[in-house]
Amino acid sequence: MDNLNQLLSFSSLVQEDLSNVENRLRNSVKADFPALESALELIFKSGGKRIRPTMILLAGRMINAPHEKLVTLATAIEMLHTATLVHDDLIDNAILRRGSPTLNTHWSPGATVLTGDLVFACSARLAAEIDCIPAMKLFSQTLIDIVNGELNQMFESRYRPNREAYFRRIFAKTASMFQTGTVSASLITADDPQVKKAMSDYGYNVGIAFQIIDDILDFTGEQTTVGKPVASDLRQGLVTLPALIYLEEHPDQPDFTDLQHCENGQANEIINHLVEDIRASNAIQKAHAQACEYVENGLKSLDIFPDSPEKRAMQELASYIVERNF
Amino acid sequence: MDNLNQLLSFSSLVQEDLSNVENRLRNSVKADFPALESALELIFKSGGKRIRPTMILLAGRMINAPHEKLVTLATAIEMLHTATLVHDDLIDNAILRRGSPTLNTHWSPGATVLTGDLVFACSARLAAEIDCIPAMKLFSQTLIDIVNGELNQMFESRYRPNREAYFRRIFAKTASMFQTGTVSASLITADDPQVKKAMSDYGYNVGIAFQIIDDILDFTGEQTTVGKPVASDLRQGLVTLPALIYLEEHPDQPDFTDLQHCENGQANEIINHLVEDIRASNAIQKAHAQACEYVENGLKSLDIFPDSPEKRAMQELASYIVERNF
Repeated sequence: MDNLNQLLSFSSLVQEDLSNVENRLRNSVKADFPALESALELIFKSGGKRIRPTMILLAGRMINAPHEKLVTLATAIEMLHTATLVHDDLIDNAILRRGSPTLNTHWSPGATVLTGDLVFACSARLAAEIDCIPAMKLFSQTLIDIVNGELNQMFESRYRPNREAYFRRIFAKTASMFQTGTVSASLITADDPQVKKAMSDYGYNVGIAFQIIDDILDFTGEQTTVGKPVASDLRQGLVTLPALIYLEEHPDQPDFTDLQHCENGQANEIINHLVEDIRASNAIQKAHAQACEYVENGLKSLDIFPDSPEKRAMQELASYIVERNF
Repeated sequence: MDNLNQLLSFSSLVQEDLSNVENRLRNSVKADFPALESALELIFKSGGKRIRPTMILLAGRMINAPHEKLVTLATAIEMLHTATLVHDDLIDNAILRRGSPTLNTHWSPGATVLTGDLVFACSARLAAEIDCIPAMKLFSQTLIDIVNGELNQMFESRYRPNREAYFRRIFAKTASMFQTGTVSASLITADDPQVKKAMSDYGYNVGIAFQIIDDILDFTGEQTTVGKPVASDLRQGLVTLPALIYLEEHPDQPDFTDLQHCENGQANEIINHLVEDIRASNAIQKAHAQACEYVENGLKSLDIFPDSPEKRAMQELASYIVERNF
């Protein structure tokens, strides 16, 4: 497991359960032969911050969710997240994920597709083991949203700044899974619409903020930290919030949407300039301020709950989301 | 829908429900843009015989399964089957499926991976809509078995005749889904262990027979009918039942397992000879006789049920499996 969790104070409350999740993750995917075992080890080793299970475990504990189901839910969501990463890296031809080599640098595309499918299947089994039909339905709908979002992203116009499309995309890509996790924590506990609404708002808002920060880090991070070139989204024609804000505030810019008709070298030069301009502008700060607004909304949704160590940890987690720099 | 179903007498009892399944299949996957719509149309149009939903609908009707859940179950299984085909065709670089071009001849590998994922996600949602946790668990376990089977097949030794591995493989590939379909029909009906056992035996045995016949047709069929070269499995080093039987009865054959060390041209020549020898031998008939034994076992499992039009149709379906020549 990533040692980072030991450094994050908000996760200390659920440290033991996070270890349980880690074990469940590894034990839920049985490898029939050594090559697959190594592949799965590679996938789970580069597991990152486990922010999704941490959030689910805290949320569930705060509202007294049944323990066993809660750990299963947290594992199912992290497994689903992991499955999407395996196929994403294949589709993007990514060679690094969080500084570690991706599975597709080791394996054939066919083997990588199947390994992703296996991890998807294991997440479906974990979801079934939660023994909660509404959570199961939410779970499968989330997978539909995520994949639809990715297909849309693949086929939609490149280099086109569009705020509505951006927020639809980051909901599908990230916030939907955060929201499904927190809502499911309420579904396995009791049928209380007020709690469910609060959980939904918290997961949604913190999820959106999380992705905005990821998109900011794509501009401000260094390649060695994020494992991909700076402004990798923009280089693929994907206009994220910092670029959106910059372009909105600089209508004098040459028409960015024409970039897809440029020759490669020329396009690179234009993008390099644009990236420098964005990094030097206040668009980064403004995007960050928007992420903070989402976090504020997420925090507000917790108002209905009495004070508790778990509630405070959820507040810290939400604040951490916009303070992290990796 | 394939017009074939109208010609199969055993499916006439469930013709209306098969149309429902067909509509549910298409309506369950929402396409956000025209390119995806065409892709999905391509996938569902080349839908084949719909033998799985036919079997599930007949089995369910025979035991008075709740109608709505039964149609959902039949759709979920066919959707799962369809999803596996999309990824299979990508992995095998297949250009034809049942005589129609595969999705990967039209789309990039990335788009094909995601479209398969979308169909998987839709099958998971349909499975959740059955509102039956045990069926849901079985469903996800079946997906795990199928994918594990494919990974094993990808990594296991080529050109090695092994009866045990063969039957394990065809269970994972085909019989597991037949069995999950019929068992789930009993799970949504009543908790009767005797009925469940009979359903399990029927699905398993007919499923194994179905795959043996597929493997026979790979030898006896013509390329135009099956949409791939004759003996395509053997050409990939996969020893199916006809080849297994032939090699068991001809221990004088040059060591087949050495084939993987041959140069391409030489290996092709050896395989072409072997395919001709197998086609001319009685191995085909013997493999067929084994499929018939499985069908007999499947038929026996129906003994516990009183006579009914559905039972007779299930008997016809089982017999059709070993009589079909396409």
